[in-house]
Amino acid sequence: MRPPIVALLTDFGLKDPYVGLMKGVLLSVQPDARIVDLSHDIAPQAVLDAQRVLSQACGFFPKGTIFVAVVDPGVGSSRAILGVETERHVFLAPDNGLLSFVEKARRIVRIENERYFLKPVSDTFHGRDIFAPVAGHLARGLDLGRLGPRIGSIERLRPPAPRVTPTGDVVGEVMAVDRFGNLVTNIPAQRLARVSEIRLKRHRIARLLRTYAEARRGDLFGIVGSTGHLEISVNRGSAARKTGAAVGDPVRVKPA
Amino acid sequence: MRPPIVALLTDFGLKDPYVGLMKGVLLSVQPDARIVDLSHDIAPQAVLDAQRVLSQACGFFPKGTIFVAVVDPGVGSSRAILGVETERHVFLAPDNGLLSFVEKARRIVRIENERYFLKPVSDTFHGRDIFAPVAGHLARGLDLGRLGPRIGSIERLRPPAPRVTPTGDVVGEVMAVDRFGNLVTNIPAQRLARVSEIRLKRHRIARLLRTYAEARRGDLFGIVGSTGHLEISVNRGSAARKTGAAVGDPVRVKPA
Amino acid sequence: MRPPIVALLTDFGLKDPYVGLMKGVLLSVQPDARIVDLSHDIAPQAVLDAQRVLSQACGFFPKGTIFVAVVDPGVGSSRAILGVETERHVFLAPDNGLLSFVEKARRIVRIENERYFLKPVSDTFHGRDIFAPVAGHLARGLDLGRLGPRIGSIERLRPPAPRVTPTGDVVGEVMAVDRFGNLVTNIPAQRLARVSEIRLKRHRIARLLRTYAEARRGDLFGIVGSTGHLEISVNRGSAARKTGAAVGDPVRVKPA
Repeated sequence: MRPPIVALLTDFGLKDPYVGLMKGVLLSVQPDARIVDLSHDIAPQAVLDAQRVLSQACGFFPKGTIFVAVVDPGVGSSRAILGVETERHVFLAPDNGLLSFVEKARRIVRIENERYFLKPVSDTFHGRDIFAPVAGHLARGLDLGRLGPRIGSIERLRPPAPRVTPTGDVVGEVMAVDRFGNLVTNIPAQRLARVSEIRLKRHRIARLLRTYAEARRGDLFGIVGSTGHLEISVNRGSAARKTGAAVGDPVRVKPA
Repeated sequence: MRPPIVALLTDFGLKDPYVGLMKGVLLSVQPDARIVDLSHDIAPQAVLDAQRVLSQACGFFPKGTIFVAVVDPGVGSSRAILGVETERHVFLAPDNGLLSFVEKARRIVRIENERYFLKPVSDTFHGRDIFAPVAGHLARGLDLGRLGPRIGSIERLRPPAPRVTPTGDVVGEVMAVDRFGNLVTNIPAQRLARVSEIRLKRHRIARLLRTYAEARRGDLFGIVGSTGHLEISVNRGSAARKTGAAVGDPVRVKPA
Repeated sequence: MRPPIVALLTDFGLKDPYVGLMKGVLLSVQPDARIVDLSHDIAPQAVLDAQRVLSQACGFFPKGTIFVAVVDPGVGSSRAILGVETERHVFLAPDNGLLSFVEKARRIVRIENERYFLKPVSDTFHGRDIFAPVAGHLARGLDLGRLGPRIGSIERLRPPAPRVTPTGDVVGEVMAVDRFGNLVTNIPAQRLARVSEIRLKRHRIARLLRTYAEARRGDLFGIVGSTGHLEISVNRGSAARKTGAAVGDPVRVKPA
């Protein structure tokens, strides 16, 4: 049988050896694992960013994929390490809200069976000592239940949600700035049925377009991005640079 | 039979989830695809850079490799998506000049058979919705002809070419600055038979060397780089930093 | 039989096509090679950094792994290219000290059999022309001895070692700054049995902790990092930013 895909998401970057070490350990346990790098450029300790990226990406991966997400400011503390099984996937992550998006878990396990860890377990790098070998064992077919006791609930972060004002304005915020300078907001497409204007900082944006190419070069416009949320963009330019906006800045959608 | 290699080239970076999403979709269609990252750090929307990198790299890949190149400022517009088959490889790319280097195409197809797309197709992320699933189907053995009608020609960009002055000077330009600060020009090695001097900005460079190690530390020199073109380099230093030169700056080779 | 893992370590970055080219060549020779990227973000020509990363990582990889390490300021000079076999692994690297950490070599070979090179061999990119195809042949099962004559010794760099002063202070230095801003020193854990204070620049650090989570947010502290050496860290912050320290800065441990 084809061994499963193991998809890695960390804030380790690729400058240090940390990701390579995890891969070495994982492949030592399951040499046939097919490792896919989801991203290693999550900002250091940005659990909410990791949560957003993983929640957007996981649905596109094949059934059986094992996701290993290590953004772990609490490494070495008493925070648990979770193994969460859904109908299609398995997730390993610290219990710090990174898996907040998981709605229908079939099983949630607190990973604590040291038999499957690398020994001695350090207090600073559980990616290498716990996550990687455990992922390797899961990729060899180990049942999640062997890794520790079932638990009932997990830590959940509540990502900022847009609110509606008495006058019907929808006020959300910038959640991410992507490599192209697009400002990704938390305002879902269904909130954009009737828009007269989008306000961001001193800018009043009148156009909600369907594609980047419809815009004149350099103009600001709104668009529903690939995640189904409003983005503020510039055709062949950077909305982040043009507006000076950053993560957390409010975005207001005024109805028609 | 061994499933083909799928080599990815994008301007998506690795900070955002875009590349991971493409891999998830691709592996959902063809779980055995062997994905190779060619580069994801093409400057945003730099079609000419992508063209240069792909043209230099593709010849070194095994027969049967499928190249997926997504640098796509026109996403969502009426620009076509191309499937181009050569004697050794298959290329998927937007019809924006990215495949200008392909000289002997056996077949050129306009990709438009939605049966092989992810639905609904977004207007902003064809990498995920069209390129990735189509690459997966090709990697499963689908014939290119099933993806759309054959067309006769493709968009071609003309990268800047060096010119020769009446006095025999060869005037080219800096095409790229690599990670080491080497200034890669568009002047081919065969133009360098008799060189008295190379001029770049205020620098007059008298030495054309065969290896970096021949130069004294810190000295500027010319060298034929690994792509067969003149490069301006500094041994154990950065020619870009030393000269302040950037992409587009003219480079003049004076004959002996 | 399962083809071996080939782990790559370079200073090529991922912006240029160099790494992709190496992968293409390697896969052309051995299409079943399982390539793992250890890191491509070693600082340009930083042989000592590459040595440190490879020495820390290699022990965690499966038996039979082939490591290809190309940080090669002397490319094209008379420096040899080494093939070194240990009990568990094979290493390919320039003979410039990158393999200083290898203690028990079973065989050391000077790679010079051009039959296994890409022709013509350039003077500027042995990663593509020598390392990649040779790694491919080794991954197909070629015996190392076929690649060139055995030699007796290799170039060894001596990474800076901590010294002990007459008063019992241990004086080491910052060897690396990781992505989190942790300052990784060369002072091994066994030197930290009795510590009264750690001095770094104008800072006097009284706390030696076991985990990041024990520290108050923003406080400087010492910790034994995942490589078994003293690190200076800040909980949820960057010790590099807080102290302004950089690679090479002295770190003094005063005994209790």
